[in-house]
Amino acid sequence: MITALDHIAIAVPELEKAIARFKEDFQLNFEGTEDVQDAKTSTAFFPVPPTSIELVHPLNGEGPIAKYLEKKPGGLHHICFRSDNIEEDVARLKAKGYQFLSDEPSPGAHNSKVIFIHPKSCDGVLVEINQPGDDH
Amino acid sequence: MITALDHIAIAVPELEKAIARFKEDFQLNFEGTEDVQDAKTSTAFFPVPPTSIELVHPLNGEGPIAKYLEKKPGGLHHICFRSDNIEEDVARLKAKGYQFLSDEPSPGAHNSKVIFIHPKSCDGVLVEINQPGDDH
Repeated sequence: MITALDHIAIAVPELEKAIARFKEDFQLNFEGTEDVQDAKTSTAFFPVPPTSIELVHPLNGEGPIAKYLEKKPGGLHHICFRSDNIEEDVARLKAKGYQFLSDEPSPGAHNSKVIFIHPKSCDGVLVEINQPGDDH
Repeated sequence: MITALDHIAIAVPELEKAIARFKEDFQLNFEGTEDVQDAKTSTAFFPVPPTSIELVHPLNGEGPIAKYLEKKPGGLHHICFRSDNIEEDVARLKAKGYQFLSDEPSPGAHNSKVIFIHPKSCDGVLVEINQPGDDH
């Protein structure tokens, strides 16, 4: 089942500038960055317990965030709900008619498993579901 | 100063349908709705302590959310940071060059004071700052 709002992801055109903005101007706690190879993002983490704000930037200029930034200056990209059993939640939501961007969950940040619901199944909102890795 | 992530607002084309989605499908706790006359929205509150997800829908088909929904099917609309002194934070951010959608804070939900930073000052993200009312 869904147990938490894991994070809110914001696509940013300049990662260092955006980190400075959220840290200094919006006075959030900055935890650090992680390159997520599978998602092709460089991600900056701002914990807002028990959720977090993640700034996502294309890794090596590639991937879905690069495509997003071709069309937009940046923006609120997706929200992510945490699951305690992602396969079960995906099956539950598929049975309700939700479409997903992939057939199976794939590796995300911090060794989590992640999958995205198609925005057309959710009135234009991109929704990620993740299940944290055992080490998190 | 900024003290919290107050809420994430999601613009929805059909409020009742979206409430059912976030309550039943995403298994969030539903607190109720409030019509915010000044913002021309009907808002549904889903507390995700200490933050919340707010579904915003045009009140009487008018206002900024109505305009947003003319162009989009719905979507992540804005994030809101909570301030313990909104006038001071607005002055601080203006001094850093941020532009706002209004000169002064105006009344928001739950007797709060609210103001929006112009998305062009924040790489395409609409950021609200609010200060809760004394009763909240």
